[in-house]
Amino acid sequence: MIKAGIVGFRGYSGAELIQILQHHGGAAVSLMEHRADAGDRPIPRNHAGPARIPATAEAAKDAGLNVVFLATPAEVSMELAPGFLDAGAKVIDLSGAFRLRTVDNYTRWYREPHTQPALLADAVYGLPELSRGPIAGAKLISNPGCYPTAASLAIAPLLDADVVDRSAGIVCDAKSGVSGAGRKPSLKTSFCEVTENFSAYSILEHRHVAEVILNTGITENEFSFTAQLVPAHRGILETIYFRAKGVASADDLVSLYERRYAGEPFVRIYDPGKSPDLLSVARTNFCDIGVTLHAASGRAVVVAAIDNLGKGAAGQAVQNMNIAFGLPETQGLL
Amino acid sequence: MIKAGIVGFRGYSGAELIQILQHHGGAAVSLMEHRADAGDRPIPRNHAGPARIPATAEAAKDAGLNVVFLATPAEVSMELAPGFLDAGAKVIDLSGAFRLRTVDNYTRWYREPHTQPALLADAVYGLPELSRGPIAGAKLISNPGCYPTAASLAIAPLLDADVVDRSAGIVCDAKSGVSGAGRKPSLKTSFCEVTENFSAYSILEHRHVAEVILNTGITENEFSFTAQLVPAHRGILETIYFRAKGVASADDLVSLYERRYAGEPFVRIYDPGKSPDLLSVARTNFCDIGVTLHAASGRAVVVAAIDNLGKGAAGQAVQNMNIAFGLPETQGLL
Amino acid sequence: MIKAGIVGFRGYSGAELIQILQHHGGAAVSLMEHRADAGDRPIPRNHAGPARIPATAEAAKDAGLNVVFLATPAEVSMELAPGFLDAGAKVIDLSGAFRLRTVDNYTRWYREPHTQPALLADAVYGLPELSRGPIAGAKLISNPGCYPTAASLAIAPLLDADVVDRSAGIVCDAKSGVSGAGRKPSLKTSFCEVTENFSAYSILEHRHVAEVILNTGITENEFSFTAQLVPAHRGILETIYFRAKGVASADDLVSLYERRYAGEPFVRIYDPGKSPDLLSVARTNFCDIGVTLHAASGRAVVVAAIDNLGKGAAGQAVQNMNIAFGLPETQGLL
Amino acid sequence: MIKAGIVGFRGYSGAELIQILQHHGGAAVSLMEHRADAGDRPIPRNHAGPARIPATAEAAKDAGLNVVFLATPAEVSMELAPGFLDAGAKVIDLSGAFRLRTVDNYTRWYREPHTQPALLADAVYGLPELSRGPIAGAKLISNPGCYPTAASLAIAPLLDADVVDRSAGIVCDAKSGVSGAGRKPSLKTSFCEVTENFSAYSILEHRHVAEVILNTGITENEFSFTAQLVPAHRGILETIYFRAKGVASADDLVSLYERRYAGEPFVRIYDPGKSPDLLSVARTNFCDIGVTLHAASGRAVVVAAIDNLGKGAAGQAVQNMNIAFGLPETQGLL
Repeated sequence: MIKAGIVGFRGYSGAELIQILQHHGGAAVSLMEHRADAGDRPIPRNHAGPARIPATAEAAKDAGLNVVFLATPAEVSMELAPGFLDAGAKVIDLSGAFRLRTVDNYTRWYREPHTQPALLADAVYGLPELSRGPIAGAKLISNPGCYPTAASLAIAPLLDADVVDRSAGIVCDAKSGVSGAGRKPSLKTSFCEVTENFSAYSILEHRHVAEVILNTGITENEFSFTAQLVPAHRGILETIYFRAKGVASADDLVSLYERRYAGEPFVRIYDPGKSPDLLSVARTNFCDIGVTLHAASGRAVVVAAIDNLGKGAAGQAVQNMNIAFGLPETQGLL
Repeated sequence: MIKAGIVGFRGYSGAELIQILQHHGGAAVSLMEHRADAGDRPIPRNHAGPARIPATAEAAKDAGLNVVFLATPAEVSMELAPGFLDAGAKVIDLSGAFRLRTVDNYTRWYREPHTQPALLADAVYGLPELSRGPIAGAKLISNPGCYPTAASLAIAPLLDADVVDRSAGIVCDAKSGVSGAGRKPSLKTSFCEVTENFSAYSILEHRHVAEVILNTGITENEFSFTAQLVPAHRGILETIYFRAKGVASADDLVSLYERRYAGEPFVRIYDPGKSPDLLSVARTNFCDIGVTLHAASGRAVVVAAIDNLGKGAAGQAVQNMNIAFGLPETQGLL
Repeated sequence: MIKAGIVGFRGYSGAELIQILQHHGGAAVSLMEHRADAGDRPIPRNHAGPARIPATAEAAKDAGLNVVFLATPAEVSMELAPGFLDAGAKVIDLSGAFRLRTVDNYTRWYREPHTQPALLADAVYGLPELSRGPIAGAKLISNPGCYPTAASLAIAPLLDADVVDRSAGIVCDAKSGVSGAGRKPSLKTSFCEVTENFSAYSILEHRHVAEVILNTGITENEFSFTAQLVPAHRGILETIYFRAKGVASADDLVSLYERRYAGEPFVRIYDPGKSPDLLSVARTNFCDIGVTLHAASGRAVVVAAIDNLGKGAAGQAVQNMNIAFGLPETQGLL
Repeated sequence: MIKAGIVGFRGYSGAELIQILQHHGGAAVSLMEHRADAGDRPIPRNHAGPARIPATAEAAKDAGLNVVFLATPAEVSMELAPGFLDAGAKVIDLSGAFRLRTVDNYTRWYREPHTQPALLADAVYGLPELSRGPIAGAKLISNPGCYPTAASLAIAPLLDADVVDRSAGIVCDAKSGVSGAGRKPSLKTSFCEVTENFSAYSILEHRHVAEVILNTGITENEFSFTAQLVPAHRGILETIYFRAKGVASADDLVSLYERRYAGEPFVRIYDPGKSPDLLSVARTNFCDIGVTLHAASGRAVVVAAIDNLGKGAAGQAVQNMNIAFGLPETQGLL
């Protein structure tokens, strides 16, 4: 039984981790209190949840934790990761702290200094379908961002197979449920500002672009990315546009994805012209991909959907834990 | 006082017409019963709404109607328009029946025969900001589609000013509230299928593309359009991507729009990098436009928002009525 | 033309006042800046809204304001009301500051001291359908709370007609859209905490109970009131249960309401067994009332619905303004 | 491994059964096609779901099914249950067909004839916390209605302990998410009719009242029940009002519930004055109960929450399956 700690368990990714691990069967959870906040929901008297311990290296050691999930802001992850690693636990970080490989890249996109450059260099980026190998031996796994997970899984096979006319660029019009913005109250995520609304943000300058560049080899100048807020709790749908070359039909593109992801348990492909929606992937670890092509003009649309809290956060974190601990990759996730 | 009839008053566009005309001050409304349906909402005893008369030419003549709004499916509009015109009323049709100029074009996109070719040829397309002139004298005004209204107002100035690298195409990623699908019950618009969901449909083949082509001069091969359903009652937001040429900054594009729409009461422009959302335009007749540009690469994003029931349907219909009857264009609409 | 100022115009009630007064035809609006906040929504370049002036007595005097609407928290209303009154404007306060008649009553329910006892004594409670007379001559009008407006209009006629078995008490199960909680961000009103949720709060101890007691003569021990949050922007629906006496059928109760509210433009009554819902009254100044009775046992249910931002706040405030300035009571509100 | 068939697997309760049984570990699922409908969601190419077989006794026999869940309308359940029982499977019916014990009672509340009176007499009502014993040996288990599950678990202990002043009656103001109405498209459950709305239905005459009467011993004349539609996918919250007698404080009532449900894994009790909301129980098999009391007057409010698809349907059905097959009662449900 893996002993797992969760820091940030009141947040949406943290709560999702608790839920997934309840069904996992191979992990015992401790909730790690980092800072007192007023955000507890009403708690029944007669149902104690998992044990609560402090979010300290000492507590991790005392509890014999094998892994700590950091469902925390980047600056908190940078602060806490070293201690947990020293305490002998693997760390799976769900923030952006360790995703961008170099201090320069981090500083450019996050506009903040990086306080753990050594760890940044050692961290392993945990998107198994694109690079599974290093995860098994990693001590610090950097869980990918939600938008980049879907975008990278959709775009990497296209670029690798050279079926994109890159002179026309790739457009990724991305939509996310509100939980992607975290649980801290703000006007932008207040109910009355979100319901019956739909809004774009970080147009052409979202920091998640940096991950897609690293994951796929696309250049910034070729890639137009807009993030948008859907009046829904969870889910990401990305509508990706490009001009195809060297493909005769949508079937060709579908086959390309099927070959690339053959044997992958968490990537599902649709028939040509069909596409997933948010409900297709809600509360799962799937990334679903559908392709439409206008063969004569080469105009192509790929719709990719994930649950931002599943494959985009907690689900993928558990997938990474499974790999890192030698468990079946799908355990607790089907 | 204009005597106005509304057919399809139980539908969402029809109901919106009632609401707008209540505040208009220059129009008296009759609700025209076309077919009995079970869709009436509970009605208070002590508040009779507007008069109800049959949706017949005779009733229109008896009531002395000056204008009839057809908030009906295309086939019903084709069936009813001739009679109301013969009865001496102007007709403002909110369906797609008379938008596409020729029978061939209609048949191609709607995949149904057109039963009123003569009227189709005479109909005036009512998008005032692009072509105001003919509306004043029109007998049959074809109210534009919701998606094409926003897309055309956003794209026409760009193509007219030749600031688009057309070789890279234009992407229009369009999102609509559910009322755009009408009030007839269907699984696709059932609450539990829509809430917490977001889905694409008619990818690369939506019939509204035909109107954008007619309104802007773009060709089908240059234009990638996806329609998508937002879990919201109303509103359209379109995120439009292109590669700009001959512009040095987002300010240039903003100025371009400002000049083009100078004096237009219903087109609002935002500062560079800012963009409207659905709430910006909810229950208004505005089309709001915001521009973001990455100058070095020319990647440009225009966000255009309307209320699909306002500028996308009932609002624009009243704007057309105002023009056709010589009233101030904004009456009842500010 | 009445010159009207609005303090708190960025809040939901304030924004609703702007919208209603745009259609009013008899009022010119100034937006009064009380405190800088970050809550402005994106503003188009080419559409200046109403003039903005400081929320000070001097500015009110300079602008020649005839009336100031205070869409502010109670403590701000107490702070600002005296100055505006001294500046010669009538004040219509939408907070709870001046609703409870006496300092003792205020202190008991609001658990805060009252800083303007003299004004409290002079304030006129503005629920026209229950007490229209004093409003015309009032200088300071206290606009009723949202919950008490619906509850009082539903309950007062029953108690006045003595058709309630008071030994069994009256239950008022009240539901409100989220805008009733104001626009200040909080965890309780965050989108992800509200969507797909429904929750009770202030069970048996909501401060609005005090107003219902004053308006209807019910005692606290007879009245069970629960407030609840609906995942919707706006609207209040109250389901009111009592044991009827001296009535033979639901028709009797319906007739009772019809007689009581004969001639009232803003109270609508439904057929027996029918009831309104939130959409019946959305964006209106109506209070809708439906009655169901199980005659044999006397079990009775009254459903009352208002828009919390309409009849529950801004609509009723404009109704009160109309009365206070001798305009037709329905101006701008139909 | 239990071989389980699901009829009505495209409906919301059926889909929930699939989800729960995926995590169960002790059941293999077959989807049983009863009637072709157009309601399939898009299906990925490379992920076949569970096997699909016809909804016939033969197919059940061929597949060696041990249990069949009927997530079907009452008339379909009556039609199908005998065949599956003859084929040697246990049947767990989620409809109202077998809940009301006698043909007379069924006919009165459902206003339709009952076609299987013999089965009706043999059916075991499966609300384990009130009557667990007979479930283990049952062949046909009638799964309780959603509203009665919460209401009965909240009310039965109160009446059994004689702490209710029955002369004042009990009010149950019930709210449900939209999935309770099933997946068949209708105007009442269309997105645009439900979002931003809240509505009451079946006031004082809902058929679920019959089950509460059977489960708790309350009489119809003592019980005022209103069903209401929340703009949410799932969840039931019931606000229950009564006048307490013989209790000195809310703690007494809380203790009463704790004693009654001691050892029950699926009933959770809150501290006095605290109450659950829909999110407390979403996607769980819990029934959560919170109590508020105004001791001086005896006015009491109990808030009970379940997930209508969980403890109100599929969750409880699996709980019943676990009991009927001798498995741990919580398997797959924690």
